[in-house]
Amino acid sequence: MITKKKNQLKDIQITSEFWNQYRELIVKEVLPYQWEVMNDSADISITHEPGGNEEHQEHSHAIQNLEIAAGLKEGAHNGYTFQDTDVYKWLEAAAYSLTYHPDKELRKITDRLIDLIAQAQEDDGYLVSFFQIEAPDRKFARLKQSHELYTMGHYIEAAVAYFEVTGNQKALSIAVKMADCMLKHFGPGADQIPGYDGHPEIELALARLYELTEESNYLDLAHFFIDQRGQDDFFDRQIAADGLDRDVIDGMRNFPLSYYQAAEPVRQQETAEGHAVRVVYLCAGMAQVARLTGDKSLLETCRRFWNNIVHQKMYITGGIGSTNIGESFTGNYDLPNDTMYGETCASVGMVFFAREMLKLETKGEYADVLEKQLFNGIISGISLDGTHFFYVNPLQADPDISAHNPSRNHVLTHRAEWFGCACCPSNVARLIASVDQYIYAVKEDVILSHQFISNQATFENGVTIQQESNFPWEGTINYKVENTSDESCILGIRIPQWSQKNARLSINGEMQDYQLNDGFIYLEAVPGTTSIELLLDMSIKKYQSNTNVVYNFGKVAIQRGPLVYCLEEADQEKSVWKYSLASDEPLDYRFESELLGGLGVIYAAAKTPEEEKEPSLYHEYIPKKWKDAKIKLIPYYAWANREEGNMAVWLDQEKN
Amino acid sequence: MITKKKNQLKDIQITSEFWNQYRELIVKEVLPYQWEVMNDSADISITHEPGGNEEHQEHSHAIQNLEIAAGLKEGAHNGYTFQDTDVYKWLEAAAYSLTYHPDKELRKITDRLIDLIAQAQEDDGYLVSFFQIEAPDRKFARLKQSHELYTMGHYIEAAVAYFEVTGNQKALSIAVKMADCMLKHFGPGADQIPGYDGHPEIELALARLYELTEESNYLDLAHFFIDQRGQDDFFDRQIAADGLDRDVIDGMRNFPLSYYQAAEPVRQQETAEGHAVRVVYLCAGMAQVARLTGDKSLLETCRRFWNNIVHQKMYITGGIGSTNIGESFTGNYDLPNDTMYGETCASVGMVFFAREMLKLETKGEYADVLEKQLFNGIISGISLDGTHFFYVNPLQADPDISAHNPSRNHVLTHRAEWFGCACCPSNVARLIASVDQYIYAVKEDVILSHQFISNQATFENGVTIQQESNFPWEGTINYKVENTSDESCILGIRIPQWSQKNARLSINGEMQDYQLNDGFIYLEAVPGTTSIELLLDMSIKKYQSNTNVVYNFGKVAIQRGPLVYCLEEADQEKSVWKYSLASDEPLDYRFESELLGGLGVIYAAAKTPEEEKEPSLYHEYIPKKWKDAKIKLIPYYAWANREEGNMAVWLDQEKN
Repeated sequence: MITKKKNQLKDIQITSEFWNQYRELIVKEVLPYQWEVMNDSADISITHEPGGNEEHQEHSHAIQNLEIAAGLKEGAHNGYTFQDTDVYKWLEAAAYSLTYHPDKELRKITDRLIDLIAQAQEDDGYLVSFFQIEAPDRKFARLKQSHELYTMGHYIEAAVAYFEVTGNQKALSIAVKMADCMLKHFGPGADQIPGYDGHPEIELALARLYELTEESNYLDLAHFFIDQRGQDDFFDRQIAADGLDRDVIDGMRNFPLSYYQAAEPVRQQETAEGHAVRVVYLCAGMAQVARLTGDKSLLETCRRFWNNIVHQKMYITGGIGSTNIGESFTGNYDLPNDTMYGETCASVGMVFFAREMLKLETKGEYADVLEKQLFNGIISGISLDGTHFFYVNPLQADPDISAHNPSRNHVLTHRAEWFGCACCPSNVARLIASVDQYIYAVKEDVILSHQFISNQATFENGVTIQQESNFPWEGTINYKVENTSDESCILGIRIPQWSQKNARLSINGEMQDYQLNDGFIYLEAVPGTTSIELLLDMSIKKYQSNTNVVYNFGKVAIQRGPLVYCLEEADQEKSVWKYSLASDEPLDYRFESELLGGLGVIYAAAKTPEEEKEPSLYHEYIPKKWKDAKIKLIPYYAWANREEGNMAVWLDQEKN
Repeated sequence: MITKKKNQLKDIQITSEFWNQYRELIVKEVLPYQWEVMNDSADISITHEPGGNEEHQEHSHAIQNLEIAAGLKEGAHNGYTFQDTDVYKWLEAAAYSLTYHPDKELRKITDRLIDLIAQAQEDDGYLVSFFQIEAPDRKFARLKQSHELYTMGHYIEAAVAYFEVTGNQKALSIAVKMADCMLKHFGPGADQIPGYDGHPEIELALARLYELTEESNYLDLAHFFIDQRGQDDFFDRQIAADGLDRDVIDGMRNFPLSYYQAAEPVRQQETAEGHAVRVVYLCAGMAQVARLTGDKSLLETCRRFWNNIVHQKMYITGGIGSTNIGESFTGNYDLPNDTMYGETCASVGMVFFAREMLKLETKGEYADVLEKQLFNGIISGISLDGTHFFYVNPLQADPDISAHNPSRNHVLTHRAEWFGCACCPSNVARLIASVDQYIYAVKEDVILSHQFISNQATFENGVTIQQESNFPWEGTINYKVENTSDESCILGIRIPQWSQKNARLSINGEMQDYQLNDGFIYLEAVPGTTSIELLLDMSIKKYQSNTNVVYNFGKVAIQRGPLVYCLEEADQEKSVWKYSLASDEPLDYRFESELLGGLGVIYAAAKTPEEEKEPSLYHEYIPKKWKDAKIKLIPYYAWANREEGNMAVWLDQEKN
């Protein structure tokens, strides 16, 4: 039984200009565009995974698949077994958008969509259009590849959101029926399936449904899925029974069990291995279940995964997944910039994981990573016009190389209109539309303000917080805390890792000393009004990698506030790798309101070799004649919104 | 009708200590070892291509396949459709070895092998054991994948060599029957196949057979194969007729036509594309046919391919093929050091191509590249013990990364005992065993001495040349030319590109000025004895890449004479990338007779960061505290003969 904490967040409005631009984009461009795409009425070109096994269909078919399953149309299923999830993630994004932008027309569409989904659902609660249309006798028979629980999990997530926003009971009933269908089919019972889905997701979805409904069976089933994972040869037994050659997704059968985080029980796994999105979805679910059940060893497992990912396997932009092969993690410190993956969905999943860890433990690092993802790895996944998307988010790219080198042609240098496997576009949409849920964490007696996204928030205990800033461009953060109760309240404010050497705090106009407690400072908000001003360190910083990262040795990356910067060919005279950052010259920040919708750029002094005739591919070294040059860096998230060109995050520094 | 040039090479003995070590290794270790492996009597572990489609058989089966085809055994074929070629390339290597190391026991084995091959051959001349055993109704029906002409081509090459060395007529007759079989089946006639093999090789083999037999039909057929390539949809038509899903090598059907150099006629191809070994085998055949037919446009095509490969697509070690995916070329200047291929066979093929171009045109560059391959990319393919082999020859490697990153796990950091696709081991063996054929090129009235491999050679015109040196360790090359005729003879000596700024020549003890003519100096060897001393520039040189090579920008490679050097972890205290070469300190060469069988190493001053605690993956840049270090470089060919570790050819230079 969950009882609402008395200081629970009651209402929040985002006032951040930076984020409201994105949130308006979701309403005005992203949702209508994606709806059209899923209804096959947009004139777009679909980008397919190079060398992938997907059928190269020219449309999404996602809505049509549901219509066929509902008996409203006839025809074959098209797309992946999890094609329905595009619709559900879109629905979830739409639900969040209704909180800040109520829209009757959209509400009509989404209510009708709920009706369609209800019609498509079978009486026993099952709903995966692929299996209903193409293989009704093979339901839950091949979970290594089928994505059935993954697919229904995404509906459950959407339904929880949609119910919470609109009160639509039908939406929730569908989810409850799905969960009940799973309760019937999965578990340790004699007639039940003792297994789990190849793609984790259902764990966090069931935990979410439990938090809404307080039906403990859902939490228990999530717990069961986590515990059962990797215990035995469940996948192989199922496939042997279903028929070895009857793959539902070509090529996946031979992926190693580690790809599925099923090589051994999760509590025994020392490192994050396999498909990065699966890992972080699983971690988010594990953290949620650990919190809700008090399962200490599961929390320990979450910490172990977190540490391995964050301290050994994460790009400075937050990207995770060092290889496109299996969209997977590789070894510790193996962070190639040009052959990497860094899937947008993996950054989204990492945000889920970070938020859940922050609910478990008050540790600044969780919020630091959450911020890193929000301001870099996630919004790099969507173009500034809202209709083009990155699946892969590289730290080094070149159009010619991507065009001609198959080890690198998964790296696009332009965002795509849509993908054959279109998991990322709606994922980034639902994250941006719900960014208000990633600003505060509420503990027993503490309100943690861990992200600098201007907002006005009201809490159940009568406290309202107004946070104002021009972040991420400026570092002055003003809080106005109104405590209408007669008790003091503790407010924890995160000092980001990048500002910990130099942050200034004043309360009611008076400068304050403060102590950092694992990344947070704690203040007492007495009854009445408290004004807090935080000055974050917005100096431009150079970062370097651990020397174990071969790819970045001797290189630096530029960061200002939370934003990682990159060098894009569009702003330079030459290819980006031909510049070496001058060692001791100051870096110059300017906000350019005309550029790319308005953003802060960094000008830097650099050296570049004088143009010389280079007759041969190799020639005897002579110290280059370097000339002075000026380079211009833009925030990483904004690259690839102009003409195609090369790009790099890690830069050489001036040499002798 | 070919007439022997009067100054043709009559006899040659290698006296080079460096090469004789390798050639003795061929006799004492390589040939016996490979014979055992092919007879499935060696206790070895076979390395399979990661992610490849090959069946993971545990033995070679190569001899057994022939025995089954010959009716001496029963059973299934094992291995690739071209498994027979392992035997043929071994036979060719054995043939060459008999020229410098006559061995009755070996001769018995090879003669018996010829008997076996004769028994396996069908009456009409066809011999590809896979199709005879597994698919006798599908001969020549699927040439895009079948490798049938490739396979018989390798036999023809072996037979020409074996006949030339031993006079074994039966060996030659088998080859003639094979060629006649092809003449019957292939050509423009109504009942003939208007196509060619997916893997070029037969072109050069038929040209070789023509040069031996003077049967012009063979040359014409080679010419036909070249002209026909890429003209139409031959491959697709064949596959449609044979059955789309009846692949003989999984996965190859969907490779693009450019992989097969069949996207358009070769004379229209502007760049070298696709599978690198196929490209250079095709080029060698084209150059040979161009020379033998006087086909000028074919020569122009060869020049175009040469220039694209050598000036845009070749590693400094001679390696070619920038990606493992399709073992292929990628774009111009795209030369990644860690995800590359650089197949040993491609270097072997490039040597064939270079030799043929040198026969066509007296241009030092052809011999420079030939030398680069011989001393680097080829001998790196075989261990110093003769029983371990590289398929892939990277310029940067790390065992941990290869183990955990599937974009890099084709890069071994130890040589393998054998491969599932074992093309390289016998290819490197036949090249080393025949290195005496790559030292002189004889033109109408000129003897070109283009490689510095000590030897004693006798020419048809009565000239003998004794070349003595301790190359590649020392650069003093002494020639003693005895001209027993009464006419002067012109001797062309190549000055390697790396020595062109600083080479000294004396004739009969007197220093001489000389002019370089496209890489060669020309001397008159008057009747009697002429002593020539050439002093090559053996200073240690740093090389840099063209600035268009993103991967090497700001880095240098070390070369001394023809040998490219590398930094191997076994010789350093830390991982190799943690060193930056000191900019201005001298590099120190020493011959170390105890190390790795004796070789010249280079000691260099370097800087390395002081060991510091690095708690996080990324941290704010502070100029590193560099300390002085000494690094030791070894010749590239000798790496991976000790404990496994990381290795790099391109090195950072000291930074501010």
